[in-house]
Amino acid sequence: MSTEERVLKRIVPSKSEEERLREVITILKRMLESEIENLGIEAHPLLVGSTSKGTHLKDPEIDMFVCFSPSTSRADLEKYGLMLGDYALNKPERHYAEHPYLSGDFEGFETEIVPCYEVKDPRKKLSAVDRTPFHTAYVKENLKKGQNDEVRLLKRFAKGIGVYGAEAKVQGLSGYLCELLVLKYGTFQKVLKGTSRWRNGYVIELDKKAKKRFREPLVFIDPVDSGRNVASALSLDQMSRLMYRSKSYLDNPKISFFFPREPKKPTKQAVQKKMDARGTDFLAVVVKKPDVVDDILYPQVWKAEKSIRTLCEKYDFTVHDTSAQVVDNEILIFVELNSAELPMVRKHMGPVPWLKNADDFVEKWKGSRKRIAGPYVENGRLFFDLKREYRNAKILLKKEVRTLGLGKNLDEAVSKTFYVLMNEEILSKGHTFPLSKFLQKSV
Amino acid sequence: MSTEERVLKRIVPSKSEEERLREVITILKRMLESEIENLGIEAHPLLVGSTSKGTHLKDPEIDMFVCFSPSTSRADLEKYGLMLGDYALNKPERHYAEHPYLSGDFEGFETEIVPCYEVKDPRKKLSAVDRTPFHTAYVKENLKKGQNDEVRLLKRFAKGIGVYGAEAKVQGLSGYLCELLVLKYGTFQKVLKGTSRWRNGYVIELDKKAKKRFREPLVFIDPVDSGRNVASALSLDQMSRLMYRSKSYLDNPKISFFFPREPKKPTKQAVQKKMDARGTDFLAVVVKKPDVVDDILYPQVWKAEKSIRTLCEKYDFTVHDTSAQVVDNEILIFVELNSAELPMVRKHMGPVPWLKNADDFVEKWKGSRKRIAGPYVENGRLFFDLKREYRNAKILLKKEVRTLGLGKNLDEAVSKTFYVLMNEEILSKGHTFPLSKFLQKSV
Repeated sequence: MSTEERVLKRIVPSKSEEERLREVITILKRMLESEIENLGIEAHPLLVGSTSKGTHLKDPEIDMFVCFSPSTSRADLEKYGLMLGDYALNKPERHYAEHPYLSGDFEGFETEIVPCYEVKDPRKKLSAVDRTPFHTAYVKENLKKGQNDEVRLLKRFAKGIGVYGAEAKVQGLSGYLCELLVLKYGTFQKVLKGTSRWRNGYVIELDKKAKKRFREPLVFIDPVDSGRNVASALSLDQMSRLMYRSKSYLDNPKISFFFPREPKKPTKQAVQKKMDARGTDFLAVVVKKPDVVDDILYPQVWKAEKSIRTLCEKYDFTVHDTSAQVVDNEILIFVELNSAELPMVRKHMGPVPWLKNADDFVEKWKGSRKRIAGPYVENGRLFFDLKREYRNAKILLKKEVRTLGLGKNLDEAVSKTFYVLMNEEILSKGHTFPLSKFLQKSV
Repeated sequence: MSTEERVLKRIVPSKSEEERLREVITILKRMLESEIENLGIEAHPLLVGSTSKGTHLKDPEIDMFVCFSPSTSRADLEKYGLMLGDYALNKPERHYAEHPYLSGDFEGFETEIVPCYEVKDPRKKLSAVDRTPFHTAYVKENLKKGQNDEVRLLKRFAKGIGVYGAEAKVQGLSGYLCELLVLKYGTFQKVLKGTSRWRNGYVIELDKKAKKRFREPLVFIDPVDSGRNVASALSLDQMSRLMYRSKSYLDNPKISFFFPREPKKPTKQAVQKKMDARGTDFLAVVVKKPDVVDDILYPQVWKAEKSIRTLCEKYDFTVHDTSAQVVDNEILIFVELNSAELPMVRKHMGPVPWLKNADDFVEKWKGSRKRIAGPYVENGRLFFDLKREYRNAKILLKKEVRTLGLGKNLDEAVSKTFYVLMNEEILSKGHTFPLSKFLQKSV
């Protein structure tokens, strides 16, 4: 049995699971239909998402839209949408996208009930989700028999290598993009082969030509709306990872691409040994996780990582690498520096000596208590040797992290409290596993 | 008495000194003329240089040319030139420019006797020195009464701030350039004011327009040969120094510009304290001085300084500053580094993952014993974390200095022996004073 056959055995729902799913969907639809009648509103339920296209894996989520006539007011759409969710779901939880909707349990399945407008043209959508039924219809119409399993393989592969999901946390492939890739290339293997032709800025089209230029690393023109890039969430690094791992898989197909082993929690000693072998200094900025959803949180986390890197670089520290992780109720931002200590002296460059402001420059620093030496000339410019403001990166971070713009919720969190750990402190404060993940670099 | 009047008192030869100089020059000329007659050759002595133009300081050198007819063979020119020098000078020393000549003592004056061809047009010169008589004539014709003292002030000023001399060691102003600057601007003070208009690439002309484009920081078209830049030796840093110090002098004229106090030899403790305050690491590459003249030596010394800086940078050390000094019979090349130690790990960047050579890159390093981590992706490129070849700058220099091209004589010298000192070793090996000069940075 080929690797892919073995994977399919693990990911495709069994016949009985599939029957149970269909039964549950039918029950849900009927419940919603009868309640819609009770409420006396014009609407109808519509199954969308992977279960509607047969591209779902085991334990799928049920995505049930409720389509309202475009004449419905936004207020009514929201009100009735929530009422229907409340009616059908166990332990409903409220989510906010463009408009609120509910998710919860329905007969053992994670289920979303989302109101939308039933528009005639996806480009004339009234709410953000109105395009989804068109995506569903397009895939259902075009996916050939058996291709749904190819989609399943691709989704599981992407999940295995960490690039599945268009959310901010992952910046990878959406389920819809996986479906379109199979439509474009034909099979799972052909998608993987196809990635070898990708380049930064590569454009993929199906039956519709791009209506405009996109700036994202990969562009897949949405066949139902040529003004939209289905791959807009995919980051360059995630795209690179997919390409690299696709090639590796084709060279040596192994089941571990789909189901990687969870890394074991290493001992403190093992991590300390790795740190010692590198000889660098590690810092961790630790912030309490604000109580917001991932799609609000992660853009701020990535921004914070970048701001902290830039801060270190601005003060002359050589950054080897950074990483941000959300662990339990904390955000950890790791920075690996060539050294957390710099010499007291730093070079301060001024203008060429023939500019008027050369005088101001010399005047400013000549009597300063920060001056160590100078002015002197190097490559035709004036310089002073000055005392450095921060010789120690830990102190820099402690003092300056609050001055950075990290995003609304993270700014609030650090304004309350945050702390900075260095080297063995990171281990002794219990962050051994996140740090080992930072050290475990792989494409 | 103004600063400049006080300076002139110290630098202009007294009446009796001047009378004695003229007497000696007359004797020398007569001796040469009679010996030329004895030898039966067609030639005549010609006083050139500062004493011929009245722009000399105290204890001047006498520059006596012997002009031969262009029909003289090069061999005869050299033979008779040397014979005449030998005849006139005490303890003659042989020098090699384009052709050999002698210098030595004549009646208590340092004297050069240099053979040249008497050509009609300086651009049709037969030997490198044939232009000099034209320079002399030009200055004598054009220098107005009293301007010779302005030249003397400028020369002494340039000497005081360390920019006098066109030789490789100094890369500053020649005596002839000082004379032309006074011809251009009128007086010493006006030359200093004039420098404020200079820029990198600034061109100065007298009665002749530039015949071509020059690339040097300052261009002064030779009035006797418009294809030549009289300021070609002036480096950008020396030009910047002259400009900066000119302005400082005009703001606050002090005699110390002309006669700076020699810095005192500091104690080891004082220098160590300065080093500690900077917090950097100091290295000194020490090479035995090859037995060659300064104009052969210094270009190699500057080249070595630059090569050693580049070597340190190539291996990721952050160079704060470098300096090269020739002290007694040794060449010292100082390097100040942010740190002489780097972490074991270094980042090694590879291609983007979609290039063919990405495979080779991964293949090359994946199994290498230098590999610490990777491959991983950053900003769309592949990376490995590898073991650094040199973590320690002292070891780097010890192992790699011999592989650099430092110039013929320095390459020979380091191939025999050289050593590398670090921090307090520099002091304990007796290089306290040169190191303190390196630390004493000023424009």
